[in-house]
Amino acid sequence: MARWQPGARERLVMAAVDLFAEHGYDTTTVAQIAERAGVTKSTFFRHFPDKRELLVAGQDALSTLLTEGITEAPAAATPLEAVAAGLERAANTMGPMNRELAPRLKAAIAASTELQERDALKSVGLGRAMTEALLSRGTPAPIAHLAAELGLLAFKQGFESWTAVDDDSTLSQRTLAALDDLKAAATTLS
Amino acid sequence: MARWQPGARERLVMAAVDLFAEHGYDTTTVAQIAERAGVTKSTFFRHFPDKRELLVAGQDALSTLLTEGITEAPAAATPLEAVAAGLERAANTMGPMNRELAPRLKAAIAASTELQERDALKSVGLGRAMTEALLSRGTPAPIAHLAAELGLLAFKQGFESWTAVDDDSTLSQRTLAALDDLKAAATTLS
Repeated sequence: MARWQPGARERLVMAAVDLFAEHGYDTTTVAQIAERAGVTKSTFFRHFPDKRELLVAGQDALSTLLTEGITEAPAAATPLEAVAAGLERAANTMGPMNRELAPRLKAAIAASTELQERDALKSVGLGRAMTEALLSRGTPAPIAHLAAELGLLAFKQGFESWTAVDDDSTLSQRTLAALDDLKAAATTLS
Repeated sequence: MARWQPGARERLVMAAVDLFAEHGYDTTTVAQIAERAGVTKSTFFRHFPDKRELLVAGQDALSTLLTEGITEAPAAATPLEAVAAGLERAANTMGPMNRELAPRLKAAIAASTELQERDALKSVGLGRAMTEALLSRGTPAPIAHLAAELGLLAFKQGFESWTAVDDDSTLSQRTLAALDDLKAAATTLS
């Protein structure tokens, strides 16, 4: 694959994730992140209000994309089809940077209980947002909860498999394939 | 229902949860918790090494009960039957104290991002523990993930409905009923 050229914002995120992995989230400073990224502290603060926002900035966007995709799916779509539409919309915004960043982010999270807690809360929040979007479509409660959990699992599994390799597959393809596997599994439960 | 009489350990947990809800987790001290519970600080430290452990003490026990129930289910049990066995084992250890504490714990969590993050991590950890117990039984991966998520959802929904009322139902009954609902929902997904 052709190398992708990051801008200042992307370099800041990658520098931060590397530093979190090496020295821990708590002890890493904004000055260190800016230095590693080769920019000034002022540049950092033009992009992010603080260290925490650097990590959660992408999360609100992801939640919005997932729920919009579900909400705007055709009225005739089944709950899982609506979830698939949300997953596709969110997955289509993720490209080479997300793929390259993933193993380092994983290392940073593995090294920090605080980041694990933040990551878990993010995951719970995404599930809740999808559940609410489905309930707003009139999906009955147990099916809405279940379809949202399947969507969340599919996104996690698709992301995991997409970032573990370096091929031409898209995150969307891998996420929808994971959703199909989970749907097949659901029909065999007894 | 007859009032249940808490011991020192239970009074400490309840006092802590109330103080967390009123003043926040960060600013609450061990001394305040002990005073509210009507015991000395030494008594606190006979029961818990610190403020954090007071909250997570129950969590390891819950995880162990869930996984033991899954692991020890008969070899012929389906994945969901094994999950039901884990849920039943965990639910049977919860009684009046858990029921009485639940709304206050919910208020404390709602008031603190830190407690929300901790709660989310706990939830992710329980799901992972159940998934691993199912994988160890030879359950295929997509079904193991799915059955564990159903179990987790059933436990949350069962706990939520059980603690919202004051009747003669047990947590086990409510959790298994929620699991049945989710199973029925799973077979209708398409």
